[in-house]
Amino acid sequence: MKTPEQLLSIVEKTLGEIAYPVVPPGLYEPISYTLQGGGKRIRPVLALMCYNAFCQDVEKVLPAALAIEIYHNHTLLHDDLMDHAEVRRSRPTVHVKWDANTAILSGDTMLIMACRFMQQTDAVRKSEMMDLFIRTMDEICQGQQYDMNFENRADVTETEYIEMIRLKTSVLLGCAAKMGALCANASETDAQALYDFAMNVGLAFQLRDDYLDVYGDPEVFGKAIGGDIRCGKKTFLLIRALGKMNDEGRARMLQTLHNANLDPDEKVNAIRAIYDELSIDKECQEAIEAFYNKAKENLEQTSLSAEAKDYLWSFAQTLLNRQK
Amino acid sequence: MKTPEQLLSIVEKTLGEIAYPVVPPGLYEPISYTLQGGGKRIRPVLALMCYNAFCQDVEKVLPAALAIEIYHNHTLLHDDLMDHAEVRRSRPTVHVKWDANTAILSGDTMLIMACRFMQQTDAVRKSEMMDLFIRTMDEICQGQQYDMNFENRADVTETEYIEMIRLKTSVLLGCAAKMGALCANASETDAQALYDFAMNVGLAFQLRDDYLDVYGDPEVFGKAIGGDIRCGKKTFLLIRALGKMNDEGRARMLQTLHNANLDPDEKVNAIRAIYDELSIDKECQEAIEAFYNKAKENLEQTSLSAEAKDYLWSFAQTLLNRQK
Repeated sequence: MKTPEQLLSIVEKTLGEIAYPVVPPGLYEPISYTLQGGGKRIRPVLALMCYNAFCQDVEKVLPAALAIEIYHNHTLLHDDLMDHAEVRRSRPTVHVKWDANTAILSGDTMLIMACRFMQQTDAVRKSEMMDLFIRTMDEICQGQQYDMNFENRADVTETEYIEMIRLKTSVLLGCAAKMGALCANASETDAQALYDFAMNVGLAFQLRDDYLDVYGDPEVFGKAIGGDIRCGKKTFLLIRALGKMNDEGRARMLQTLHNANLDPDEKVNAIRAIYDELSIDKECQEAIEAFYNKAKENLEQTSLSAEAKDYLWSFAQTLLNRQK
Repeated sequence: MKTPEQLLSIVEKTLGEIAYPVVPPGLYEPISYTLQGGGKRIRPVLALMCYNAFCQDVEKVLPAALAIEIYHNHTLLHDDLMDHAEVRRSRPTVHVKWDANTAILSGDTMLIMACRFMQQTDAVRKSEMMDLFIRTMDEICQGQQYDMNFENRADVTETEYIEMIRLKTSVLLGCAAKMGALCANASETDAQALYDFAMNVGLAFQLRDDYLDVYGDPEVFGKAIGGDIRCGKKTFLLIRALGKMNDEGRARMLQTLHNANLDPDEKVNAIRAIYDELSIDKECQEAIEAFYNKAKENLEQTSLSAEAKDYLWSFAQTLLNRQK
């Protein structure tokens, strides 16, 4: 089996070799810019690994793996526009470097391009792969809508939050893993177990994101701690804390969170003090651990060799052990 | 063969029966709103007619026909956002009734929905149909980009303009017609001839749009004459007129067109007077006629019965003879 690093270099090489039409001017430059922006390429590497766990000729799953990566970058492009985010991977976002209309149209074109790559798949279960891809893209739109709706709601439950991050981020990891399995013509049981494995890794990964924002080592984390608190974002930590408080405590906490006159650093400290008092840090770690264990169980359920399981589990661990 | 009216009612009924998920709130309402907004449903009806010219069971091509209509409405939704258009089919556009972010995300979801409908096709040549659909969607994005680029260019040639409208609007008509043929497993020659037929009808249709804007009967046209002149839009008439003038005349005409101090009605009269003097009205009619004749030739090249040819030609004529 090829190492994640070897597969990453195959992904980067293939992405770098995409031949973009030169006309009309302005349509494909933002797409090339976005796809050349780096990133960890977790999804295509995962698709290649899951394929490689069954079969040798990893090139076969490349079109599907790239389709997923292209679609992922499409969502980043349109989400950044919707969020008015100005920087992505240390570079100006497309709507800043070009303009909003360019971001809309190039983003649409990327979505179509993703479908074209998926359609280039040469595998007996191609139709099933396309079905999975389309269902996943639809779920991701639902996740984004939930995320937008939650901004205006004070009563988001933990279950709702988990479902939102599942749809917005984890199903694409599940899709990538299952895509590799389907392309390798694995059994339905194996394909579904790998989907669940990657989805649970994704959930753990996302909760860890919430955790690191407050409890990460600022030196290693690479950005200021407490960004989510500063912008009043609903996270697992916040929702769990609110759920453990009485009405009065809840009101006071929300007041602190949305107090525009409070110094941002003081706000972060005040909110973190509440988290500490309620042991939210420990509980968040436990929730991460629970998804982590589910993912491990899912992997155990597959018919893969011990070696192949180790191979996939190591990758999951590198994702989950990241400090930034 | 079913009449266009019968096929239209099948399309409307099927569109009306689409079951939208009820959650997340806000994602599917704009899609339902857009798809229930009426319109002539030219593209799905054309797909059904082209299928019906070969086969009886028109239900078979319905998923593909709806995919095309849904995609078409996706482009209207995103184009209206990019153009800041406030009204579509006498109702507020999605970004006005909701907001820009809703228009972006619901529009993306419609594109994915279109792919899902196409993927539901049950036909031996399904993969070829999906290829055609994806290629066409890509071409339409190119057409939209050309259209946007042309706004900032004073030197757009007639050839470039025709290519822009071909990509932006005519290829989807071609795609609809060919989709019907492919679904009916028609010969490649017939499928391509029907594509060219509908594409040329589309080009004639689009030039007629340019013509009616200046020379339509205001009573029948349903809106004020000269809208394109008022907003300084590049049309076939304008590009043809500019091409027939010397540098001095061209400069004077563009000055008139972009003179913000000139009364709009006077501007329309002044520009129309130039068109009249240069016989642009007659030349535009001839250009329409030329595409119309090409379409007729394309239809003749098919192996269809005289009856089936008449059937499709009558539909093309109703499109081209419209006065609004």
